[in-house]
Amino acid sequence: MTVARPDEVRRYNRSSLLRLLHTGGPATRAALATDLGLNRSTIKMLVDGLAEVGLVEERVPRQAVPPARGAGRPSLLVLPKPQAAVVLAVDVQVERAVIALVGLGGQILARNSWNLHGRQRDPDELITHVAESAHLLAEDLGVRAVAAGISVPGVVRRADGHVHAAANLRWTEVALGRRMGGVLGVPIVVANDAELGALAEHVRGAGRDSGDAVFVSADVGVGGGLIAQGKLLRGAAGYLGEIGHMTVHPGGRACHCGNEGCWETEVGQRALCRALGLHEHSARGTIVAELRALGSDSVRRLGDYPDWLTLGLVNVVNVLGPELVVLGDLFTALPDEVVADVAERVRRRSIVSRALGGVRIEKSTLGADLKLLGAAEAAFEGVLGAL
Amino acid sequence: MTVARPDEVRRYNRSSLLRLLHTGGPATRAALATDLGLNRSTIKMLVDGLAEVGLVEERVPRQAVPPARGAGRPSLLVLPKPQAAVVLAVDVQVERAVIALVGLGGQILARNSWNLHGRQRDPDELITHVAESAHLLAEDLGVRAVAAGISVPGVVRRADGHVHAAANLRWTEVALGRRMGGVLGVPIVVANDAELGALAEHVRGAGRDSGDAVFVSADVGVGGGLIAQGKLLRGAAGYLGEIGHMTVHPGGRACHCGNEGCWETEVGQRALCRALGLHEHSARGTIVAELRALGSDSVRRLGDYPDWLTLGLVNVVNVLGPELVVLGDLFTALPDEVVADVAERVRRRSIVSRALGGVRIEKSTLGADLKLLGAAEAAFEGVLGAL
Repeated sequence: MTVARPDEVRRYNRSSLLRLLHTGGPATRAALATDLGLNRSTIKMLVDGLAEVGLVEERVPRQAVPPARGAGRPSLLVLPKPQAAVVLAVDVQVERAVIALVGLGGQILARNSWNLHGRQRDPDELITHVAESAHLLAEDLGVRAVAAGISVPGVVRRADGHVHAAANLRWTEVALGRRMGGVLGVPIVVANDAELGALAEHVRGAGRDSGDAVFVSADVGVGGGLIAQGKLLRGAAGYLGEIGHMTVHPGGRACHCGNEGCWETEVGQRALCRALGLHEHSARGTIVAELRALGSDSVRRLGDYPDWLTLGLVNVVNVLGPELVVLGDLFTALPDEVVADVAERVRRRSIVSRALGGVRIEKSTLGADLKLLGAAEAAFEGVLGAL
Repeated sequence: MTVARPDEVRRYNRSSLLRLLHTGGPATRAALATDLGLNRSTIKMLVDGLAEVGLVEERVPRQAVPPARGAGRPSLLVLPKPQAAVVLAVDVQVERAVIALVGLGGQILARNSWNLHGRQRDPDELITHVAESAHLLAEDLGVRAVAAGISVPGVVRRADGHVHAAANLRWTEVALGRRMGGVLGVPIVVANDAELGALAEHVRGAGRDSGDAVFVSADVGVGGGLIAQGKLLRGAAGYLGEIGHMTVHPGGRACHCGNEGCWETEVGQRALCRALGLHEHSARGTIVAELRALGSDSVRRLGDYPDWLTLGLVNVVNVLGPELVVLGDLFTALPDEVVADVAERVRRRSIVSRALGGVRIEKSTLGADLKLLGAAEAAFEGVLGAL
């Protein structure tokens, strides 16, 4: 605690209010006053200030029923203006790149995507393509991005966005943060994709009301992000842990990480292909179609895939003790029956889940834009306080 | 941030100074000023206040060499007075209970211990024995404990010290916090033993300078505690995760937790007994003697024990991403050669360790009092701010 000067207090309250509108969406002045614990005249002053510089606007809320006579004027609804602060979000997947301009409030204003094959997966090519594509999007929209967030399926040092390894992209030691920053000319945050998925779930998804949640997602690789005591956890030096590289099967398949029997080799996209009797490199669309066609006997028909999923989730719950596990990305294509079966087995087998009275295990509802939204949030983190 | 009143600032500075003396030991006024970022007249005022109520005393520091002529008076050394604030620390182990009175500054002022066999392991018996024994110790010393911290080898809810399960004690659903509080009449903190080990390492041990460290300890059970971004992490509802109950060996031995192939079944005390060719219930002294007698070929002579230790530590490092792993309790009896071999293999096999430039893996140096010191710190956490 340090002694706060009045202008510091004002700035802090202003950025708290802006953050609340950004993450919670439009709210009445009355609701803002309650949520922030400030009186209405302070809220009025702050909102007026934000409206003056064009960050918010105010409207009379639509009413389901006309207000009762004598009830006074309805509290004005305060809305963030999406175009007033725009960030660039980039989701580098193994087979695709997606970029989007995301406005204040979290709305995707424009997007573009392209396949990554062969040379396009090369960092130089990717950086050039992202920069060109972002420039065109911004021009079309008549906006300028003030920061950028980039999601990468790999081990990333948060301090400078250095990618130590992104095995499924065949990247090692790529100074992505520095190089992308040089090209785009705005502050850049590069982070692990599962970490950004966890951030998106925490800010806008199933993890909103949960102080202790784990986000686990499968693409070709399997990754995780942890919200602990309401905050996104990072490992030492900004490297997040890699849940996909728990050994769950000693003597099992060789993993690209140099170890063997990693959870990723048993529940990642390729393992799911094997469980479905598909070629290991089948397209995502084929996998999803096959999963839909499994019918009511889906648990049995996936062989030992649900067993490995259960085993790894028991470990995640036992080691990290969350109240909620959110399954993302490819896991969201699993039949509900499979998720319910796995969840029930995890709750039965995990001593920590039993102590907690039963961990919740749910599919993400944020869909394919999850990591994009997480990348945008990571970029907004540095922006909101300065607006 | 709220606006701070002058008396709040003074109270905050006072408790910061007291905490610094408690954890860091005696310091000169000059060093305190530097560490707290306060000027020397503020330090003088605070120290005078603390001295007045008997919490600290001041001495002219012993000098290795006489001060240079004209160098002025040496800065006074400020020392916490151990007996000015005393807490009760209780370490409930599977086969033994240890209690101690710990003074301000972390010094153990008096202690007592007894074996736990048969009925003595019963919660009622234990509570009675602890209360009587603590009363006698305090009487002998002429002090009164103002709070108590209790370490239990089990799954504990921090909010009220409810022990959900302590399998190796055969306890389930014991309201230890409430019951012990009723008997002792002081505020009580009950926590998992490995969590308190992590706290002790963080405050007084190998983890002092490390923001992201994992503490892993073996007794009959195997547990862990995590320091993340400089703070002790807790799981949802105050239940810590249980590192010992990661499944590392599918189809392996049945574990008391109801699952099978848990890490604890491969690296806990009983597994170590098997590796040494001893009966599974051999006494700690026998195990330690056998480990000492292994000689220079210790890695090979322990069979697959070092392999399972490596496998679990790779998982711990990959999932949690620490810069430091501290091995506690029974693990400290392992030959240095074994620890070095395991550490080298973890660094080679863990993708996260490679990204970090090599995780450090060290034995705890706090010895057998580790959990006792952790229990004392947990008790002091609620005390220091109120002195």
